Amino acid sequence: MDPPIAFSTAFTVEWGDCDPARIVFYPHYFFWFDTTFQHWLRCAGLSQAVLTERYGVVGTPILEAHAKFLGASTDGDRLEAQARIERFGPKRFRIDYRLTRAGALLVEGWEVRAWVAKLGDRLRSLPIPAEFGEALAKVSVDEVQPIRVPADRPYW
Amino acid sequence: MDPPIAFSTAFTVEWGDCDPARIVFYPHYFFWFDTTFQHWLRCAGLSQAVLTERYGVVGTPILEAHAKFLGASTDGDRLEAQARIERFGPKRFRIDYRLTRAGALLVEGWEVRAWVAKLGDRLRSLPIPAEFGEALAKVSVDEVQPIRVPADRPYW
Amino acid sequence: MDPPIAFSTAFTVEWGDCDPARIVFYPHYFFWFDTTFQHWLRCAGLSQAVLTERYGVVGTPILEAHAKFLGASTDGDRLEAQARIERFGPKRFRIDYRLTRAGALLVEGWEVRAWVAKLGDRLRSLPIPAEFGEALAKVSVDEVQPIRVPADRPYW
Amino acid sequence: MDPPIAFSTAFTVEWGDCDPARIVFYPHYFFWFDTTFQHWLRCAGLSQAVLTERYGVVGTPILEAHAKFLGASTDGDRLEAQARIERFGPKRFRIDYRLTRAGALLVEGWEVRAWVAKLGDRLRSLPIPAEFGEALAKVSVDEVQPIRVPADRPYW
Repeated sequence: MDPPIAFSTAFTVEWGDCDPARIVFYPHYFFWFDTTFQHWLRCAGLSQAVLTERYGVVGTPILEAHAKFLGASTDGDRLEAQARIERFGPKRFRIDYRLTRAGALLVEGWEVRAWVAKLGDRLRSLPIPAEFGEALAKVSVDEVQPIRVPADRPYW
Repeated sequence: MDPPIAFSTAFTVEWGDCDPARIVFYPHYFFWFDTTFQHWLRCAGLSQAVLTERYGVVGTPILEAHAKFLGASTDGDRLEAQARIERFGPKRFRIDYRLTRAGALLVEGWEVRAWVAKLGDRLRSLPIPAEFGEALAKVSVDEVQPIRVPADRPYW
Repeated sequence: MDPPIAFSTAFTVEWGDCDPARIVFYPHYFFWFDTTFQHWLRCAGLSQAVLTERYGVVGTPILEAHAKFLGASTDGDRLEAQARIERFGPKRFRIDYRLTRAGALLVEGWEVRAWVAKLGDRLRSLPIPAEFGEALAKVSVDEVQPIRVPADRPYW
Repeated sequence: MDPPIAFSTAFTVEWGDCDPARIVFYPHYFFWFDTTFQHWLRCAGLSQAVLTERYGVVGTPILEAHAKFLGASTDGDRLEAQARIERFGPKRFRIDYRLTRAGALLVEGWEVRAWVAKLGDRLRSLPIPAEFGEALAKVSVDEVQPIRVPADRPYW
């Protein structure tokens, strides 16, 4: 059996992500779903800019999104995000997500995305090229770049 | 048959809601789902502040959310939002949403929300009081307040 | 003396705009500054899409922004926004903003924006055409569109 | 001369942070100003939750904010954020920020924040305790936590 096409990254819940109930305002979880996917694309060398240049696709638009909220999170929480692609349809694909905090599952959900390219003035749904899945399969963990502090702190 | 418990409001898609693909960044649609619900609460005299004061409930938290995206929208579009509550469970309720532009359906989805109150230091899921549904049933259209321009424009 | 080039609109502070201190998370005030300007553009028939098509300008980018916060606002507050353009520089202009609630000044600030067009692959700062200011001067109050409820509520 | 009270962290510009002009929608830079400050607080052991518990202060509210935008950034850019506190006034303090990309300065700005505590039902501006500045002075670089991938990827 093939290993799953999967990817892990992590986020910090910020003060500005939380509402007066002191927990994350829920649309932000979808922001993190999207962001996890974008990190995956970039680690695979396929940022949205590259996708547009190479395939003419525009933003891998969402067709459907779902989330189930099992636990709350708040300012300062470190969330680990895991994404997995079950299979690629001919013209669309579904990404499953799980957000955990210290191993405890907080949110699970999924997105269905289309492969849409601009042909002249019109958007057209097209078959997903095989190399797209192959590129995503090659990376599985986000690289967190360390904070670089200039030796001489030139600005201060 | 009883008329549905339903409510209508409207939003404008702003420049800052759109992404480099020139369409709404999808998590914002969930912001508008939530906002539609909050407008409904306020029109019914039940803002989150009132809910907390009267019932001790905290933010009517989301248990599940779903959306299906049938058409794109962009900067300047006027979206009409319709919300409906099918039924109240004993401790949770589901709100269905439809966002349309000039009558065309763009997004449909739903939220499941809990009725959660703070008892001492703990959050407890509690039965929804009947008067909550009764209050929501009494309003069906958001009042859009006109822009008031001070006769003398005092600031300029 | 010429009357000022000014414009008024209004916004509602939403639940999702507020942070755990129960007041607006301050970056959202800049969102409303920008939104006020975009409403003004649209009322003047000059949405960003029109500006791009007619003049080749891209997003009227911000060079500088400032805000002073005199009072807090929270979920459900209705804020009135007033914008004014003091003068147009040759290649940039400054917009002053005031956000009030029931006449009380809460936030005042300003933005400096550039007039930047795409020439080939490069962005170039260009002189602002006189008709831009003339178009803005012709509108002074945002039209709030009423909520339209379909007579038959077809969806529910 | 004392070394400056300063702190460094870093952010990635996300797809959802960018507008149709393909650059960061400017209010998000203020989100990163605030986030840099919140990271600093947390690294110093003084999250907003701790500040409330220990001092009764509520959210270190903003009195004034400013930013100058010298260069654009877009999806995938890694921004380094440097914050510095010049001095603590008796009841307020100013934080200076610089956002750079690969050493090039993109945004510089500042916030003035108050030290406000809840006394009974009222908010009161109070003198900043000396230990607040001392705690901030002890940390200078954000710790970026690596992505932890469970050995067995239990969910997939």
